[in-house]
Amino acid sequence: MERISLGHGEGGELTHQLIHDVFIRSFDHGEQARLDAAIISSSSEQIAVSTDSYVVDPIFFPGGDIGKLAITGTVNDLAVTGAVPKVITAAFMIEEGFPIRDLKHIVKSMAQEAEKAEVKIIAGDTKVVERGSVDGIFITTTGIGAIEQSYLNPESMKKGDAVIINGTIGDHGIAILSARKQLGLMTNVTSDCASLNQLIQNILRRTKGIRAMRDLTRGGLATGLVELCEDFNSTMEIEEAALPIRDEVKGACEILGFDPVYLANEGKTVIIVDANEADLVLDILHKDEYGADACLIGHVTAVTEQTGKLKLKTPVNTTRRLSRLSGMVLPRIC
Amino acid sequence: MERISLGHGEGGELTHQLIHDVFIRSFDHGEQARLDAAIISSSSEQIAVSTDSYVVDPIFFPGGDIGKLAITGTVNDLAVTGAVPKVITAAFMIEEGFPIRDLKHIVKSMAQEAEKAEVKIIAGDTKVVERGSVDGIFITTTGIGAIEQSYLNPESMKKGDAVIINGTIGDHGIAILSARKQLGLMTNVTSDCASLNQLIQNILRRTKGIRAMRDLTRGGLATGLVELCEDFNSTMEIEEAALPIRDEVKGACEILGFDPVYLANEGKTVIIVDANEADLVLDILHKDEYGADACLIGHVTAVTEQTGKLKLKTPVNTTRRLSRLSGMVLPRIC
Repeated sequence: MERISLGHGEGGELTHQLIHDVFIRSFDHGEQARLDAAIISSSSEQIAVSTDSYVVDPIFFPGGDIGKLAITGTVNDLAVTGAVPKVITAAFMIEEGFPIRDLKHIVKSMAQEAEKAEVKIIAGDTKVVERGSVDGIFITTTGIGAIEQSYLNPESMKKGDAVIINGTIGDHGIAILSARKQLGLMTNVTSDCASLNQLIQNILRRTKGIRAMRDLTRGGLATGLVELCEDFNSTMEIEEAALPIRDEVKGACEILGFDPVYLANEGKTVIIVDANEADLVLDILHKDEYGADACLIGHVTAVTEQTGKLKLKTPVNTTRRLSRLSGMVLPRIC
Repeated sequence: MERISLGHGEGGELTHQLIHDVFIRSFDHGEQARLDAAIISSSSEQIAVSTDSYVVDPIFFPGGDIGKLAITGTVNDLAVTGAVPKVITAAFMIEEGFPIRDLKHIVKSMAQEAEKAEVKIIAGDTKVVERGSVDGIFITTTGIGAIEQSYLNPESMKKGDAVIINGTIGDHGIAILSARKQLGLMTNVTSDCASLNQLIQNILRRTKGIRAMRDLTRGGLATGLVELCEDFNSTMEIEEAALPIRDEVKGACEILGFDPVYLANEGKTVIIVDANEADLVLDILHKDEYGADACLIGHVTAVTEQTGKLKLKTPVNTTRRLSRLSGMVLPRIC
């Protein structure tokens, strides 16, 4: 069988074969041969849970594919809460006629990234819908992480805290746009999609003053920081000149009229940390493959009773307020 | 705004509004106002995890809708493992142009069913795709349950154990087919979709000899029992004449050429129990709204070293082997 048929989603013999041939072979870890409800031991008192659907178009792009993205995205969502991601479930919605070779490729990417991130894929589901009812393949992953220690301390956020990012912004967004070959855009930018959990745990274990973190996916750096400002009543100011942006991303943004602070990333987090520990954090980041371009991009300028604001200081020393992404339409970026 | 736009899936201001207006309002339980990664306390040492995507067509059908189904399906998947379902995450994939009124209706169904089943919807995700890239709305739910006590004992399954079902088979399958108005089928059958967790916990707490359970969704009774036979090396024999089937379902199956043992259910479980406790289990079932039509449908006839088989004894006293569902195409039944 070379292509997915509706029978693969019926829950009968074909589903059984598909699960065994494609999923179990890649994901199974010995202890169980089914991908229905899984039972795991949990030694932590607190667990973090996160779910995300991936509908990225195209499904294969420079730097990754929908499978890798489904793992890194969920791993990072958990990691920024201070949790250690442990297990992931994966639900597949597949269009009738989808090539099984592509499915195997995607599943292999998931298995490889899961192994790298040290998470286990423990349960799954496969639904097949008629041609035209879904565009190829969509994946929903749900991750469960253990909060072994409460490292984050957003309540102690204070004026002067450093705002650090682990690398360049906008790579994922431009890589996807470029892969779509829309808008005549041709770049060599690859997606930054990467699991940051080990890097983040390394930072959390070696510091005491991490206030909060946020991964910068849909909505980009600006949306992520606005959410932090609102959630923790803090005002932050970031410096436009300090933002790490690849020349190619900058160029593509100029041509297309996009603002890189709103472009999606899939391997980037901001870290709000006590100013005294900013150098330590940067030092740890610079020694990591996913933090080589890390830099300080701004500071917390006030913690107030009201909702905080995000401000951008331009190279000509004017300041403007940044809001959440609104209006720009880049669907299916993740 | 009356319809979902691509902007609702961008992760910016519109997504923020949608989450607050539609999801948080229905799902929130006070302690948190975000639907990103959620943090929960877990007091059990073992937790069960299950994930399922729902692509049912049509999304509204007699007896339920895709939202109710997404809760009951995941609740039941956990319940039959012996776990007490605690929390659920929900990921929505929505087609551009989908009516917000319908979304609110679906979300309300989810909230109501979650309340009834005593589970909390704690985290979510919303992706919007272009018109034609998904058929209306698909939902993926992942449930986490606590295994407070290990009630199930499949290893002690033995010859003579009773096979009990909590009610009529095929109702969901026929209700969906009828709602599709395909095949000229018109019935008054409503879907059996229901959360069985409280009923199941009641049985587990009042008995000692429950070996195993299995909810009978895609693939129906036959596929569910074949899986149990294979997983636990037991051979079972069920009696065709004993199977509870509504006359309307029987009639529809005769006209359409379907075998009710392969039709999907969404509120049915088989219970394999020590013969000595069969009457007690039936008694508990008969007193419950979801067990009124419960009955004994067969027995375990052998536990062997090899893979078990499922046998059906016909009314004329012949016996035939049942295999997993194969070949029948009823896509998007759940």
